[in-house]
This record gives sequence, C-alpha cells and structure tokens, in this order.
Amino acid sequence: MDEQAALSLVGGVVPGTGDDCAVVDDLVATTDMLHETSDFPDGTTRYTAGWRAVGASLSDVAAMGASATVALAVYGAPSFGDSELESFLAGCLDVCAAVGAEYVGGDLDEHSEFTVSTTAIGRSDDPVYRSGAAPGDAVCVTGAFGRSGAALRFFEDGATERGNDLFRFDPRVATGRALAPHASAMMDSSDGLARSLHQLAAASDCGMSVSYDDVPVDPAVRGAADSPADERELAVHFGEDFELVCAIPEASVSAAVEAAPVEVTRIGTVTDEGVRMDGEPLPDRGFTHG
Amino acid sequence: MDEQAALSLVGGVVPGTGDDCAVVDDLVATTDMLHETSDFPDGTTRYTAGWRAVGASLSDVAAMGASATVALAVYGAPSFGDSELESFLAGCLDVCAAVGAEYVGGDLDEHSEFTVSTTAIGRSDDPVYRSGAAPGDAVCVTGAFGRSGAALRFFEDGATERGNDLFRFDPRVATGRALAPHASAMMDSSDGLARSLHQLAAASDCGMSVSYDDVPVDPAVRGAADSPADERELAVHFGEDFELVCAIPEASVSAAVEAAPVEVTRIGTVTDEGVRMDGEPLPDRGFTHG
Repeated sequence: MDEQAALSLVGGVVPGTGDDCAVVDDLVATTDMLHETSDFPDGTTRYTAGWRAVGASLSDVAAMGASATVALAVYGAPSFGDSELESFLAGCLDVCAAVGAEYVGGDLDEHSEFTVSTTAIGRSDDPVYRSGAAPGDAVCVTGAFGRSGAALRFFEDGATERGNDLFRFDPRVATGRALAPHASAMMDSSDGLARSLHQLAAASDCGMSVSYDDVPVDPAVRGAADSPADERELAVHFGEDFELVCAIPEASVSAAVEAAPVEVTRIGTVTDEGVRMDGEPLPDRGFTHG
Repeated sequence: MDEQAALSLVGGVVPGTGDDCAVVDDLVATTDMLHETSDFPDGTTRYTAGWRAVGASLSDVAAMGASATVALAVYGAPSFGDSELESFLAGCLDVCAAVGAEYVGGDLDEHSEFTVSTTAIGRSDDPVYRSGAAPGDAVCVTGAFGRSGAALRFFEDGATERGNDLFRFDPRVATGRALAPHASAMMDSSDGLARSLHQLAAASDCGMSVSYDDVPVDPAVRGAADSPADERELAVHFGEDFELVCAIPEASVSAAVEAAPVEVTRIGTVTDEGVRMDGEPLPDRGFTHG
C-alpha cells in the first residue's frame, strides 16, 4: 500500500482527517515525522533541521488560518552530542519565536537514524478547510515557489550554506490569519503546487485553472535549475515549499492581498472541474513524503 | 552525553520543562517517540503498539491532573500493510475512547524501523506539578506495579497474548483528575517507582520514605518473576507501568482515595531529605527510555 492509499485508509477509520490540521473545539493540531534519509540532505545543520521540522508543523497551523500556540519536537538520534542538540533546540526556538508560538520541548529518543517528530497546536474559532472553494473564486498563493527544490540542488553541489539558508522557510502563520476571513479554502504547499491544487480541487469538488506565468518563482531557482523545463519542475512539482495555496472569492481578493504581510499572488481561477495549467491538464505529481 | 544529561541540557535551554507535560495557558501537551528495538518486544501486536504508544502520552496528561482532549500519532514503518495499519489505528482509537479523548490521526512516515511518535493534549486550569510535595504529605500511588516488567518476561517466553494483555494499560486520566484537587505533587511512573520517587523528591526539594510491603504489586508479577528479589526488581525499578505517583497532604488523603475511580494506596510519607525504602537508601535506578 503506498502513502496515498494508506492515508485514505486512515481517513476511512479516523473521523475528521483530510485537512492540514485536525480540529477539536477551538484547537487545531498536527504532527509530522521527518528523518535523515528522506528529509535532511547531507549538509543540513541541526539548526536548520530543528527550524524546518517544527516549521513544517507550524505551516499546517498556518494553513488552517489559526494562530500558533505551542510546538513540541522529539529528537531521535544515535547519540546526543551537546552541540548538535543545542543547535537543534535553537532552530526550534527561533522558528517558534518567528511566528509567536511557544516552543516547549518534547522528548529524546535514542534512535538508529536521525529522526524528528514535531507537533504544533494552534487556536482558531473559525478555521479554514480545504473544502470551501467555489467556481469563480480566485486561486492565490503566498511567497514564491521552488525554494526547497533549489536548496536540494545546492546541497547536492556542496553549497551547503546556501542550501541551509533556503531550507529555513518562514511559516506563513501571520499571513494565514490575515487570509482566513477571506479565504474559502486553504492548505499549504508541502506536497508541491500541482498536488496542492489537485487536493484543494478534490476536497472542494471543483476544478482549478492556473497560469504558469503568474506563479511566483523564487529567484534561487534560476541559479539552481539547468533549463526552463527544470525551473518549472522545481517550482510546480517539487514541493516542500510550505507556502499557502488558497481560494478567495473575487470580491475579497484585494482586501485579502492588502491584509497579508507577505506577497499574495493570484495565479488563476476556480473552475467547475479539471486541474489545468495554461489550458493543459496539470499532472497530479509532486512530493510524496517518505 | 546520556539521556539524563541531554534532558538537563534541554531544561537549560527550553523554559518550563521538567514535568510530565508542558503547560501553556489552559493547555498541557506532551510528545513521545517509541520504536521497535527499545519499546515493542517481539510479539507486540500493532493494536497493542497503538494503544500503548498513545497511552504513554495520555498518561503524561493524567499526571498533570488534566482532562485529555486530543491525541495524535505518527506511524513510521518500512511499509504500510493495511491490516497492520488498521490494527494500529484501532489501538489508538480505543485507548482514546477509554479516557474520553479524541484521536485525530497524525502522519505516516516510511521509516526503516517501526517507530511511533505520539502527542497528547489536555486541559487544566490548575495543573499539578512535580514540585509541590512537602514533608509530612502522604506518598500515594494508583493501581499496581510490575505489570510491564511481567509482560516483558511473558514476551520472552513466547506467551505473547499474555504479554499483549499486560502491555495495554489504562491511562489514569480520570484518577488524575480526581486526585488533582488534593495532590501537592504528581507524576507518572514511566521510569519506574524508584526513579519517580527520586524525581518527585528532587523537584520538591524533599525526601521520601516508603515501605515495600505497602507497594501494590500486580498479580502477574508473581507468575513472571523467579524470586522475591526479582519480583521487587520488576515492581520497584523496571518501570513503564504508567501509574500515578503523588504526594497528598495528610488531611486530604481519605477524600482523595474516596474520589479516585481506581485503588489509591499510601506507600509512605514525604520527609525532609533522602529517598528510602524500609529505612534503606533506595537506588535511583530505573527505566531509561531508549
């Protein structure tokens, strides 16, 4: 059974799954596990690992339009070297400070492979789900895409400082909160822009039509990709960028864009069916989390 | 650096650690990672693993005297066999149902070793910490000790059904809530009774004097241990029993015992200093979580 099939099995057994966070009362909660072979390329510092792992969970909180309250992390490693553990904790603390969440520690686990498990908890009285998009809404995104794909290329080339810089993204918590009163549906782009569009479309039972020229591409992608096709691959399919992808009713778009503390870009329109880029079917291909 | 040293490093960097849960506003939160080589002996079913892993986090919520609101789990495994995953989820759901918490899923991770990471979140306006015990308070425990140590022996002997039964403990959430208005300090016994007494004593800057004859020992221990000394080892040092260990001011003991839905037993008295059993120093030796 692959991950998608397994997720749908979970969805059949556990009520209320399918969004970036679970919602219980006024709380939203999410948990993730990352580990060395699939998530932290050679050269990733422990500081970056802590920032990124906790950031991934905070991004899920952002995707619900919630405020981020608490984050926890389990640090699993073959041994607990003090400078490594300190760097990791500093990364966790700093990413939480960046979004106004409290980092409260977690657990240590002696583990054969470096493995990090993170949890974030937020609060919202009116969270945004993936399921509310309606035909005619604008499809909008925050920030720029391709940053993590570019980072991986830098890591592969031994440019680890550049890779680390790009790997430490800003979770869009403040932006998520600013968009929440306007957005009809929202998620983060951890599986890639293409897959996110498919997931929003499926959850909302609609289609999406977007234009590649309107997709904001991170400037780092140009230096990392070896062709325009490769740039597009990194920006549209690679994933792990942790931007927000949302639908906003036409009448609210300018208010939403103005309210958001980072750039929000319209890349297309919600349609009745089918996910298309520049008029062509957009393959549902992206990052599958190991 | 060993686990104790690493934990004290974390305590120096992250504020508010040192209790079974972190406390933020009216929330308590905890996370744990368990994995095959150190936590799930051969023969542990996925149902038991789900129950036990989520139960361990719920036990931390119980130790704060909080109600249990939400639990999440990450299921990391080399592959996602559907009957295994279904059994695991059933264990997670059932242990949550047993304590009135909502199981809301989590994450899947393709991981070389079967690894489970769990999070539980609870609510309390007045959580109980480890630090409030005062000389003269009664030292009390819930349930009985030695169950997990006995289970391990059954697993080793191939009596896996018995081992699995004993491994699925009831997290003491309702009892923790009943004790909370009375207890001056509380924690769970995941590291063993002896170590828990030392940890309560250190956090409260006091001592503990207990009597082994008063320690309730699970009936399964008799069948599993090969001598009275071995019984004592399983009951006092082995750990992983997830009972509550607390201090209760003398005047409140009978009210606390009456309010609790499970047996609460007085095993001794809080003293000025030193942790003693039957008048002898009690070694600070117990389960170190791998």
